[in-house]
Amino acid sequence: MTREKIYLFDTTLRDGQQTPGIDFSVEDKIAIAAMLDEFGLDYVEGGYPGANPTDTAFFTKKRTERAGFVAFGMTKRAGVSVSNDPGISQLLQAKADAVCFVAKSWDYHVKVALGCTNEENLDAIRESVEAAIGAGKTAMVDCEHFFDGYKANPQYALACARTAYDAGARWVVLCDTNGGTQPPEIRDIIAAVIAAGVPGSSLGIHAHNDTGQAVANSLAAVEAGVRQIQGTLNGIGERCGNANLVTIIPTLCLKETYASRFTTAIDTEKLVELTRLSHSFDELLNRSPDHQAPYVGASAFATKAGIHASALLKDPKTYEHVEPQSVGNFRKVMVSDQGGKANFINELKRRGIAVEKDDPKLDQLISIVKEREASGYAYEGADASFELLARRTLGTVPSFFSVEGFRVMVERRFDANGHLKTISEAVVKLAIDGNRVMSVAEGDGPVNALDLALRKDLGKYQTEIDDLELVDFKVRILNGGTEAITRVLIESTDNTGMRWWTVGVSENIIDASFQALMDSVVYKLMKNRQLAGKIAAE
Amino acid sequence: MTREKIYLFDTTLRDGQQTPGIDFSVEDKIAIAAMLDEFGLDYVEGGYPGANPTDTAFFTKKRTERAGFVAFGMTKRAGVSVSNDPGISQLLQAKADAVCFVAKSWDYHVKVALGCTNEENLDAIRESVEAAIGAGKTAMVDCEHFFDGYKANPQYALACARTAYDAGARWVVLCDTNGGTQPPEIRDIIAAVIAAGVPGSSLGIHAHNDTGQAVANSLAAVEAGVRQIQGTLNGIGERCGNANLVTIIPTLCLKETYASRFTTAIDTEKLVELTRLSHSFDELLNRSPDHQAPYVGASAFATKAGIHASALLKDPKTYEHVEPQSVGNFRKVMVSDQGGKANFINELKRRGIAVEKDDPKLDQLISIVKEREASGYAYEGADASFELLARRTLGTVPSFFSVEGFRVMVERRFDANGHLKTISEAVVKLAIDGNRVMSVAEGDGPVNALDLALRKDLGKYQTEIDDLELVDFKVRILNGGTEAITRVLIESTDNTGMRWWTVGVSENIIDASFQALMDSVVYKLMKNRQLAGKIAAE
Repeated sequence: MTREKIYLFDTTLRDGQQTPGIDFSVEDKIAIAAMLDEFGLDYVEGGYPGANPTDTAFFTKKRTERAGFVAFGMTKRAGVSVSNDPGISQLLQAKADAVCFVAKSWDYHVKVALGCTNEENLDAIRESVEAAIGAGKTAMVDCEHFFDGYKANPQYALACARTAYDAGARWVVLCDTNGGTQPPEIRDIIAAVIAAGVPGSSLGIHAHNDTGQAVANSLAAVEAGVRQIQGTLNGIGERCGNANLVTIIPTLCLKETYASRFTTAIDTEKLVELTRLSHSFDELLNRSPDHQAPYVGASAFATKAGIHASALLKDPKTYEHVEPQSVGNFRKVMVSDQGGKANFINELKRRGIAVEKDDPKLDQLISIVKEREASGYAYEGADASFELLARRTLGTVPSFFSVEGFRVMVERRFDANGHLKTISEAVVKLAIDGNRVMSVAEGDGPVNALDLALRKDLGKYQTEIDDLELVDFKVRILNGGTEAITRVLIESTDNTGMRWWTVGVSENIIDASFQALMDSVVYKLMKNRQLAGKIAAE
Repeated sequence: MTREKIYLFDTTLRDGQQTPGIDFSVEDKIAIAAMLDEFGLDYVEGGYPGANPTDTAFFTKKRTERAGFVAFGMTKRAGVSVSNDPGISQLLQAKADAVCFVAKSWDYHVKVALGCTNEENLDAIRESVEAAIGAGKTAMVDCEHFFDGYKANPQYALACARTAYDAGARWVVLCDTNGGTQPPEIRDIIAAVIAAGVPGSSLGIHAHNDTGQAVANSLAAVEAGVRQIQGTLNGIGERCGNANLVTIIPTLCLKETYASRFTTAIDTEKLVELTRLSHSFDELLNRSPDHQAPYVGASAFATKAGIHASALLKDPKTYEHVEPQSVGNFRKVMVSDQGGKANFINELKRRGIAVEKDDPKLDQLISIVKEREASGYAYEGADASFELLARRTLGTVPSFFSVEGFRVMVERRFDANGHLKTISEAVVKLAIDGNRVMSVAEGDGPVNALDLALRKDLGKYQTEIDDLELVDFKVRILNGGTEAITRVLIESTDNTGMRWWTVGVSENIIDASFQALMDSVVYKLMKNRQLAGKIAAE
């Protein structure tokens, strides 16, 4: 049996932008578009050129290599010809492969929000689609409020979908804009749309999670005949979010019910990257990944000690709905963890650290890491700190210098001109080869001052760290409330172009920052020696 | 048409206990059982008496007044008579109204996990159910791995369900233990169970969220004829969690598809308490509620988009799938740089601030907010700072006190015993009615010290802020790298139970924190006056 293709349409950069607390910069958008393109989605919707400066700037270039790059915008206004509508002309000028027009399909909204007649709205749909095609773009139409519109006036909702299709739209996307439609309604209404003459091969679904069923509604739509799914990374989006592509993709690929009938652009090799894609996106948003997320969550394949755990070890397949490795995730049995050791050995090997399976120092390292992670460290995102810890535990890292103490002061006071001013000053006291070195520096804030003071005078090592540069600094408060613990992640780079991440954890943010700064400096000194050794050996 | 009742079975205290990171004490269980009972669920499953000291202690008393109190446990072991099985006798002695037996229904697990024959397992189900009924309890059977078991050996899975029913079990619960079953499979397999002679009125569904469809699977089961749903508060549970009752209940009550055919024990009056129930439970778990949770999340009825916001105000019903008030939540039109004037007016109205559309101060406020948001402020997550800014711009906020300056010092040094120690100390200088007040405090970190110093002596206002409590603190680094700007969000609460969020932005994290702390204190003083005014007016 030939399997039909389900097209994957990502709207993280457009509808995902509606998420409370999320505002993408142009740089964010470029990075995310590259992630999506690389992963292999069919379409990447980038935003609404003309609506705001960020999106306009983003669309001055094509931002994908493989995926169709889509610009979103409204259909032409009533009473204006398509060639005189400035919104349309910005859309057509955008460096996009496709234009996705949002069109009203609920007669109530045509009247109240657009203030035009039902016929004028159909004309707007038709003319906008034709203009996009005329400009050499693929045309798509998001039928806003389609399901609620259908319930209010089925004939009119169908007319909107049909008009878009007849005008040549490649995709007519049925949107559950308010997110309240139930799967049985999705199935019935899509059957009516197909019966009205829009084939399933031209239909898409855009679901929201207001009743926790965005994934189910998307899949119910596929069952009903729809062949394109719109969604976002990790289900971000307005209110309760959009359909989560990170959940839908593995279900389509791995669940027999769908995999026997459908294909997607994501093959088994790409699917293994799913967990990393999901976590990288959260990293970019500076938020902790959801441990309980389907497929990709840290707990998705975790079994707590109990009746299941021992049986699980006998035959994991009968306790896991899919293989964790298939989506790049891991099994986690919270009792005697046999798989954990092999993971560690691999992690160390990847960093050029050889260790025997039965070396007692390996067990020591595993228990130190577990203990530290329980207290808030996250070595997954801090490879340099992990490598330092591993080398310190297993072998030797030179003791370059020691810290006798530091002091940071932040003072807000009136200056001589009567203006309030905040000053940050740091003092760091080091011992290098028995010599005491004290440095003081002012900075933009306490961490900046501390960084400058630490790197101001490192004695005989000073020339070695001249090219060290702090490029990113992230703070996350764990626990929250009164027992808050702060985790600081620092990204550093140098003239070699290498980048490394270090971590510090403390109830005191300055302390946590200092740990991460120290690790960064020591890592750099260690790397310098490894590099010199390598060159000498060559 | 008579509507059929859907029974609600809560397993927060049993299956919810499998959530990584969650361990309930007896006191926790008592508090949660009371919340569930008060809310009106039909059954509260409390745990597994005999399996651990907590659960055994919890079942020494009946812990519900209205809900059926359920003890969970395994069916009798093979090769032992029911009266000689210590597990069964602990279950029957527990002070519960009902016993829910977990029974294997996948022949593979009968062989591998139980190590007995298929017949012996059927005998165990029959005899355990009869024993519970003989002891005056309601009997229920959770058919573990039912759907996977059915796929492997349909006859045997059906025989297990049928045996439980024939023995007199009030409920035969079909469990998707591994969580990977899809809604179409749920429908087909349940149809087969009903055809095999177990009526839907005796069937329950127990779904897990491993493909993000626990809610959809539960509702698909109801469509297929099942009349009991098992789930947990906020969807806690092993791996990706159980079916979320907080999502399922309002869908059953408010969505025509279900409400026209079914009733539940939760009437419209109780439903209004849903948001509070969900948040109280998170409070008890000491975690922040999920903002994007269906129905009850802070963002569930929040609109960011400018184009939607103005239409929303004209007729909210056409932009909301249910009325936020019906579940005890509320509408939120967010202030953000995407929002228009209508957004602002509505936001102000919601806070009791009346302003004319053409008031020049409104334009001034909008431009201040936009300017501040461009520099890093995020008022959508800081309603109290927004209200303060608005009242300051539009009307008057009393100038309670002024800040002359502050100084924060963090020092890491060796103490008298030679241990490295970090000390944080803050000094705050205020002017209150012309009097200068200086306070000094030590804290766990610089922000904690600053908070303590600021609230240590507020002169004549001190008694007013005694109940002010800082409950959460979030830090986000914007831009990153050398031009980093820090945004701090603080959540506060007081004895009235009200919660408010304030924001501060600066290149200096201490400065940003101080702004947010100040806003919190001033907001509290302002609210006290509004509250007093309201009481005086009444």
